[in-house]
Amino acid sequence: MKNAIYAQSGGVTAVINATACGVIETARARRADIGKVFAARNGIVGVLNEELFDTSRESKTAISGLKSTPGGAFGSCRYKLMDVEQDDREGQRLIDVFRSHNIGYFFYNGGGDSQDTCNKIVALGRRFDYPITCIGIPKTVDNDLPATDTCPGFGSVAKYVAVSVKEAALDVMSMCATSTKVFIMEVMGRHSGWIAAAGGLAGADRTEPPHIILFPEIGFDRERFIDRVGHSVRRYGYCVVVASEGTKFADGAFLSDSGSTDAFGHKQLGGVAQSLAQMVDDDTGFKNHFAVADYLQRSARHIASATDVAQAYAVGKAAVDFALDGVNGKMVTIRRTQDSPYRWKVGTTSLNRVANVERQLPRSYITKDGFGITARARRYLSPLIQGEAFPRYRSGIPVYTTLKCIPVRTRLAPYDPAD
Amino acid sequence: MKNAIYAQSGGVTAVINATACGVIETARARRADIGKVFAARNGIVGVLNEELFDTSRESKTAISGLKSTPGGAFGSCRYKLMDVEQDDREGQRLIDVFRSHNIGYFFYNGGGDSQDTCNKIVALGRRFDYPITCIGIPKTVDNDLPATDTCPGFGSVAKYVAVSVKEAALDVMSMCATSTKVFIMEVMGRHSGWIAAAGGLAGADRTEPPHIILFPEIGFDRERFIDRVGHSVRRYGYCVVVASEGTKFADGAFLSDSGSTDAFGHKQLGGVAQSLAQMVDDDTGFKNHFAVADYLQRSARHIASATDVAQAYAVGKAAVDFALDGVNGKMVTIRRTQDSPYRWKVGTTSLNRVANVERQLPRSYITKDGFGITARARRYLSPLIQGEAFPRYRSGIPVYTTLKCIPVRTRLAPYDPAD
Repeated sequence: MKNAIYAQSGGVTAVINATACGVIETARARRADIGKVFAARNGIVGVLNEELFDTSRESKTAISGLKSTPGGAFGSCRYKLMDVEQDDREGQRLIDVFRSHNIGYFFYNGGGDSQDTCNKIVALGRRFDYPITCIGIPKTVDNDLPATDTCPGFGSVAKYVAVSVKEAALDVMSMCATSTKVFIMEVMGRHSGWIAAAGGLAGADRTEPPHIILFPEIGFDRERFIDRVGHSVRRYGYCVVVASEGTKFADGAFLSDSGSTDAFGHKQLGGVAQSLAQMVDDDTGFKNHFAVADYLQRSARHIASATDVAQAYAVGKAAVDFALDGVNGKMVTIRRTQDSPYRWKVGTTSLNRVANVERQLPRSYITKDGFGITARARRYLSPLIQGEAFPRYRSGIPVYTTLKCIPVRTRLAPYDPAD
Repeated sequence: MKNAIYAQSGGVTAVINATACGVIETARARRADIGKVFAARNGIVGVLNEELFDTSRESKTAISGLKSTPGGAFGSCRYKLMDVEQDDREGQRLIDVFRSHNIGYFFYNGGGDSQDTCNKIVALGRRFDYPITCIGIPKTVDNDLPATDTCPGFGSVAKYVAVSVKEAALDVMSMCATSTKVFIMEVMGRHSGWIAAAGGLAGADRTEPPHIILFPEIGFDRERFIDRVGHSVRRYGYCVVVASEGTKFADGAFLSDSGSTDAFGHKQLGGVAQSLAQMVDDDTGFKNHFAVADYLQRSARHIASATDVAQAYAVGKAAVDFALDGVNGKMVTIRRTQDSPYRWKVGTTSLNRVANVERQLPRSYITKDGFGITARARRYLSPLIQGEAFPRYRSGIPVYTTLKCIPVRTRLAPYDPAD
């Protein structure tokens, strides 16, 4: 009976562990069909290094606890595999690791880059004539994978952002007569405005904050922005702005660009809120404040969406079920069957279709003026933040699970990429 | 029967409305002893402008909903009354407003500056021979009022910071092998490190994150900071830093100082996290990220401390009860009678004792190396974040109350400070 490797890659989320829980619990329930689940330490890097954790040595309670623990219990990585056509050392090593540990299933949990990695494993299996079933599992707070209604991780960030904007807006509204009039909240979303759009759910309609949302999809125009800030302050006494970190000028230049790049060549962004605050200072003189939620937004398990948690678990479970049904080279998807009440089921799509493809926020989700979300966006987004899935608390702090992470005994010589 | 004015001043909190609820519900329950509660719009500014809301026209449900609504339902202000010895126009106006609306009770909810305002009303009453009972109610996320165990608002920020640090730390820990190694969270606390200290509750002891806490009370030394960051990254693979916005060098210069000042002459701070991130970049090259929670931390009613909510309500209730018992010129306090389980009761202290006095974090709460909290600090802080007081949710978003805020008919000519 073949064992499985489960690994996760890219930015972690508030619910990525719920997916791991879904994979492990389902494999345990189907122990007649599948061997052990080995979790790679730090994604594909852990497979290369033969750093595998034996999840069968974790207690039922510990595995169950993953469902309400943020971060990635087995680590994660940002690592792009070498192109096997140009250099097959990594490929050979991966196959060696698979063979040594009798791996027949590979579950890779991540965003577009990770689905590409998963797709490469499919190709490796063929090239080296090693039978392996590969299933990609969707995960990304950016919500930018195609072919799935949403990506686990997104719903919880969306809820965090909507709730935080609503709360901060009440704060600013209270103080605006004699203090801060403009509040800017910077949110994630490198190339797409899904998370920024979720901020729009803080208000029931456009008379409620946020008064301005800045999307990467809409070219930023300083004059129009400042006009709108002034309009909001005159009309409501204050102005709440949600700004995507990826907000850029019409010519494509990011409002703020630190210039560094990650392993996949993506630019690392930061400082949009500060840039905007400076503009508000310079052009209006309105007292302003800004928040940069950064990792807080994607790790906020305490305010996770119950829908998101359920979907994160379901895609993990489905990955195992599909693999054991003989599905291969696919990514699990979520299919929406109804908006309200929200109904969904899992499905699959080809890895080729999702690898390295980014789904933009549709223009029809953004109001004509470019500063708000449409009814259509609300219809899409609202179900994703429904329900609360509070963790257990002890001494005022959530109880988050730490696994033992017992390593599987290595069978190979240490990996030396230079060999 | 005399009416009451309730007003709040300074930064709002996640639970300041719970105090308003305590005042209003208690006055309603004692309607044989006290008339209507008029809430001033935007603190003392609303009294000057005769902008009063008639809380008796709000439904029972609406008032009860205040208990779980962040921000200040009646607004707030940062406004320092003129010194009546030098210019008594404001004083005369306040007395006119009190007289016109048959005000016999003045409840002022705020921090040190607000208690000073309350104390000035006591003096005004004497000077103008107008009988008014003044009770100060403590509120400040900074927790820097003397003579009270804690200040309502602080416990909830403390819980938010502790939970957020714990969650973000799990995120960073997952990614540190191939991505971000240093995470910095900037928290409030202009002159005292109470909020930063609360970040220490994220870990059970100093082997758990946060690895470094920066307090305004401890002179910042770049070399020692960078050494400690390196030590943490070597030992744990990553480093989580909680930095008070008031972190300053040994010579008293703030790490980042925007140069602007508020109505009370306090410097407005910002940018500590960014300054630290720059140092980490320059001196270590470790990939780093930072979050600036700003208003999110003090408005996060969704993660409020149940203890804090209970205390916020209790000080509002006590203010009315004390006033009707003939107490005057006092601030309500919280007295700790036992650490664990935490027991407390309300008391009073003289407004003279608290007005304009700031309570620093005791040195004994900070570890010798200046980067952590002691067992003593934990004993003090831990009870304050205990218990959850989740708001009600609808469509995935907390249900927060909006009052009708029906104005009391004005009886005076508009206030013109120039008259």
